[in-house]
Amino acid sequence: VLKGDPDREITGVNSLAGATPSQVSLYLGGKYRRDLEKSRAGALLVAPGAEVSGFDLLEVQRPKLAFASVISLFHPQVRRPPGIHPTAVVAEDASIGPGCSLAAGVTVGAGVVIGPGTEIHEGTVIYEGVTIGAGCIIYARVVIREGTRIGDRVILHPGVVLGADGFGYEPDDEGVPRKIPQVGRVVLEDDVEVGANTCIDRSAFGETRVGMGSKIDNLCQIGHGVKIGRGTAISGAAAIGGSTVIGDQVVVGGSVGMADHIVIGDRALVAGGAGVTGNVPAGEIVAGFPHTDLRTWKRAMILLYRQARRD
Amino acid sequence: VLKGDPDREITGVNSLAGATPSQVSLYLGGKYRRDLEKSRAGALLVAPGAEVSGFDLLEVQRPKLAFASVISLFHPQVRRPPGIHPTAVVAEDASIGPGCSLAAGVTVGAGVVIGPGTEIHEGTVIYEGVTIGAGCIIYARVVIREGTRIGDRVILHPGVVLGADGFGYEPDDEGVPRKIPQVGRVVLEDDVEVGANTCIDRSAFGETRVGMGSKIDNLCQIGHGVKIGRGTAISGAAAIGGSTVIGDQVVVGGSVGMADHIVIGDRALVAGGAGVTGNVPAGEIVAGFPHTDLRTWKRAMILLYRQARRD
Amino acid sequence: VLKGDPDREITGVNSLAGATPSQVSLYLGGKYRRDLEKSRAGALLVAPGAEVSGFDLLEVQRPKLAFASVISLFHPQVRRPPGIHPTAVVAEDASIGPGCSLAAGVTVGAGVVIGPGTEIHEGTVIYEGVTIGAGCIIYARVVIREGTRIGDRVILHPGVVLGADGFGYEPDDEGVPRKIPQVGRVVLEDDVEVGANTCIDRSAFGETRVGMGSKIDNLCQIGHGVKIGRGTAISGAAAIGGSTVIGDQVVVGGSVGMADHIVIGDRALVAGGAGVTGNVPAGEIVAGFPHTDLRTWKRAMILLYRQARRD
Repeated sequence: VLKGDPDREITGVNSLAGATPSQVSLYLGGKYRRDLEKSRAGALLVAPGAEVSGFDLLEVQRPKLAFASVISLFHPQVRRPPGIHPTAVVAEDASIGPGCSLAAGVTVGAGVVIGPGTEIHEGTVIYEGVTIGAGCIIYARVVIREGTRIGDRVILHPGVVLGADGFGYEPDDEGVPRKIPQVGRVVLEDDVEVGANTCIDRSAFGETRVGMGSKIDNLCQIGHGVKIGRGTAISGAAAIGGSTVIGDQVVVGGSVGMADHIVIGDRALVAGGAGVTGNVPAGEIVAGFPHTDLRTWKRAMILLYRQARRD
Repeated sequence: VLKGDPDREITGVNSLAGATPSQVSLYLGGKYRRDLEKSRAGALLVAPGAEVSGFDLLEVQRPKLAFASVISLFHPQVRRPPGIHPTAVVAEDASIGPGCSLAAGVTVGAGVVIGPGTEIHEGTVIYEGVTIGAGCIIYARVVIREGTRIGDRVILHPGVVLGADGFGYEPDDEGVPRKIPQVGRVVLEDDVEVGANTCIDRSAFGETRVGMGSKIDNLCQIGHGVKIGRGTAISGAAAIGGSTVIGDQVVVGGSVGMADHIVIGDRALVAGGAGVTGNVPAGEIVAGFPHTDLRTWKRAMILLYRQARRD
Repeated sequence: VLKGDPDREITGVNSLAGATPSQVSLYLGGKYRRDLEKSRAGALLVAPGAEVSGFDLLEVQRPKLAFASVISLFHPQVRRPPGIHPTAVVAEDASIGPGCSLAAGVTVGAGVVIGPGTEIHEGTVIYEGVTIGAGCIIYARVVIREGTRIGDRVILHPGVVLGADGFGYEPDDEGVPRKIPQVGRVVLEDDVEVGANTCIDRSAFGETRVGMGSKIDNLCQIGHGVKIGRGTAISGAAAIGGSTVIGDQVVVGGSVGMADHIVIGDRALVAGGAGVTGNVPAGEIVAGFPHTDLRTWKRAMILLYRQARRD
């Protein structure tokens, strides 16, 4: 529903604070009220019935999702023209799909298969036997070790490392750690996105797997044999121990550490900074180190600090 | 003020533990007393009135700053000779200032402007539309995404990623995270230094900005839309949530996690390991997770552990 | 001791869950019992006297070590054939040992010495004056800054950065941090392994050193001047403050933060997520933030959370 001037010309999109009278913005209420008061935006995407005056309003059921579409409209993702840069080094038996773009300094190992319309940016290294789907964007300086399998529309940000050896050792008789060869692989399903300099290790055997549509932020460590479900989001600097299983639509906050060999149920929420030392049931909200339910952790820390101040 | 032999020949500079009789070192008292007792240094930079015997002394007001100058004297920063390596791939319309050095495998995108005397080391990837000031050192394998703006004398250590997409998603009706396009940019002001493999994300709109003279250590995650003031120092493996504002001359310890959308006042000090969940007033010293004032945290943990041992 | 059919043909090796009747696996008891019940493995490596029925058993004193050998048997490490790729850029005075493999886009600076049989993968950058021993594997996109010394059989995973400047500053009269030049170097002894995107900084003076056989996981930050002993293992996303000394055969869990200038004794164990704020005696097991002995930390947190739930 449009409330306001139907002839207003909108030429762009911006944040509440940055928008000009010819730009559209997003207003979600709550903590954004202060930004709203100073905003010069020409129009706002809002939820139905939002109490806002002084702006042209466009009421939609999911204003943030609609806003994403409006941003894409004004800032369409620019895809690179197809072609292989003369400095790229591509194995003779690699299969590069139609419409692919391989930038300067890219290397592609033997037996690699890349689907149509995928772009590989400068300096990215693809080891032998990797398969990559269609329509992917692999940014600069990514390393993909041998045997990794990547679905369609996957985005890998700069510096990502997929398929490095898992951290597996066994002390010998002198207590010196001896390497256990890591002979598994990494699988990323369709629509996965992996943040800059994040590392996802190959498993000892079988697979380390990230499910369809899951998103991992920058500088995360995903240990060997981890299984991540579908539509899960893991925030920056999180570290997940080996063989841990994370369900669907789980949300993991920043700087979280998780033990190895644990299970996090579907739609669980792990608050930022938490240290997860054991299983988390589906749908639970946990926080703290060691983790507990969010309410207990908050009360515990308030009690503890209050007592310390009294003493 | 020189106290000692004015004819002593000093041929180098070293730590207290490593210095030989022909080398100068630094003595700051306190925890360094033990190193001093074993030191064979020929001369020491000390604060006026320092109680030290058995060494030639050079008394100066700011001995550690003076020491930095002495190190630079004996170990001058070697700048690379100007030139563009034949394997570098530079867009035709890029503007490379006089005296610049572009090493092997460097790529420079369309419309890039690089100021005079800047050196770009091996394998660094500069996307289109980036501007870089004068006298910068960009070490090997850095990635600078499109539109980033970098001031003068900036140092980027190997593996830095500037301007990767911020971590912004909105769940759709099926709960699957949908990407919100990130159309802002990263701005680093003059004299900023960024540590190895650190990532600074582009903002959704507007800027992620690091102020003049601020220093960020290795493996830090700086979220989208973060604003960092001037002369601030952020230690290794810290992760700063999106849109958080950090003031001038703030000191952030190692492994700190900060929530998004919070404000850290000027000259605040965040102790290593802290998890900062809300605003920190200017000048405060905070610690712990959740953060509180340093004194309360220390007392709280002493009380808690004492009680646990008694039980 | 073999218990079972001596003529069974074994054609591979796998995890308990993944093994087929023609594959051998490992059974260590305890938490693996559940996997055992479903396992179709044709044979198992077990400790002498293990209570297992329904499988051919191979009893050995150190089953996990033996398993590592069996994996290597079926999945031998493939070494690259010797040779220097035409796109590699190697300084004229660099010394490359016989049998070395230098991949596409590798750069090797002046005065570098590389021992026999070492392989350097795509896009790795070796600055001037580095020495690397024999039989090393340096994966893709590693950066090794000037003067670094690396022993034999060292493995560096993709994206590792060795020898970046330590984080050393001193505030000037205006409170702006001034850089203290870092003129030391990094030394890795024989058989060290360093995980993907991990950073080990050069010291201010002297050495940052990692002792023989020590293993460091992905995304770890090792500060300037740190000394790590022999046979020590440091798990993912750990950050070690400058000048800290870690002994032999220490085990450091994931996401651990350690203060600078502290000492961790031999065979100490630091549990995952700990924040180590002071010295740890040899052989101790510590946990929590601030760290204490594991038992105290566990009791403390149980007490605290119990109290919070009661309130």
